[in-house]
Amino acid sequence: MLAVSTANTKQFQHMFPVEVSTVISILTRTPDVIKGLVADLDETWLHAREEEGTWSPHEIVAHLIFGEQTDWIPRMQIILSDQENKTFTPFDRNGHFQIASGRSIEALLHQFEELRKENIHILLAADVTIDDLRKTGIHPAFGPVTLGQLLSSWVVHDMTHIYQISRIIAKQYEVEVGPWKEYMGILNR
Amino acid sequence: MLAVSTANTKQFQHMFPVEVSTVISILTRTPDVIKGLVADLDETWLHAREEEGTWSPHEIVAHLIFGEQTDWIPRMQIILSDQENKTFTPFDRNGHFQIASGRSIEALLHQFEELRKENIHILLAADVTIDDLRKTGIHPAFGPVTLGQLLSSWVVHDMTHIYQISRIIAKQYEVEVGPWKEYMGILNR
Repeated sequence: MLAVSTANTKQFQHMFPVEVSTVISILTRTPDVIKGLVADLDETWLHAREEEGTWSPHEIVAHLIFGEQTDWIPRMQIILSDQENKTFTPFDRNGHFQIASGRSIEALLHQFEELRKENIHILLAADVTIDDLRKTGIHPAFGPVTLGQLLSSWVVHDMTHIYQISRIIAKQYEVEVGPWKEYMGILNR
Repeated sequence: MLAVSTANTKQFQHMFPVEVSTVISILTRTPDVIKGLVADLDETWLHAREEEGTWSPHEIVAHLIFGEQTDWIPRMQIILSDQENKTFTPFDRNGHFQIASGRSIEALLHQFEELRKENIHILLAADVTIDDLRKTGIHPAFGPVTLGQLLSSWVVHDMTHIYQISRIIAKQYEVEVGPWKEYMGILNR
């Protein structure tokens, strides 16, 4: 598996350089994609997990909200600011549990949609140039990271959680599909 | 990896038995989810692949169309019919290339949406009972399979391709994310 993975990385290196317009186009659609995956889903499925200690679709939406509040845009603002200390506040991977607690999925989806809209607005207003994409902040674990890395990670982070929700849904029918399991990549990772 | 996978399977066995209402609720939303992921995506991304020999988002939508035309509902109809020979026609995994060829993503998304609507209609009209879910047809590779297995596979198949499209999009920024790659499950399978 690792060998294949390395080969792919080489083959596709720098396939697409990060462009703010593409980032915005993808980030804009995520709330609808997530809503399509989870709105009106049975309550039992909303709280289903792949395994103990992993997140449910309901918690993933809360995590996306928390990211909008504390991660992507606040870090962009640190990078683009004139402040001396550009170290990011560490992201709290448990920060969303309080957001999720006792709230309906509709309320969470609505909040995510609104926050994402506001953040896209802030990103647009920042009028990020190619030079800006090379500016850096200090990630608490990685050290210096560029704005381009931050923005492309925001997109990939959305994809990671779309991928996770689709996996959680598929997982609930892992036994029900019977022999078809063999053909379903999502059940055979 | 295999050991973990087996453990999960045991833990979640028969978590949710297949129910037609849930199947319909999930299948109904897939066209919107796919549209959210690919509509207005840059042309280069629509034709991007994870690696040689795998499908692009554009081809995946065509494959979903081909499934609506030749796979799920036609097989359900064989299972529920009175015909003696209940062997399914083998599914052509290359059948979608002709559908994809020269067509815009908008045309493909529209066709998928329409076919899915019609098929949900046929599924609703079939008024499938719990007894029906146990009826069988003959899969060309697996032998006897039940209608319940077919319908849950239809759902998991949708999820497999949502998961695949989110992976293809993420892959394009594999290098751009820099050190964040380590945190992105979707880039570290």
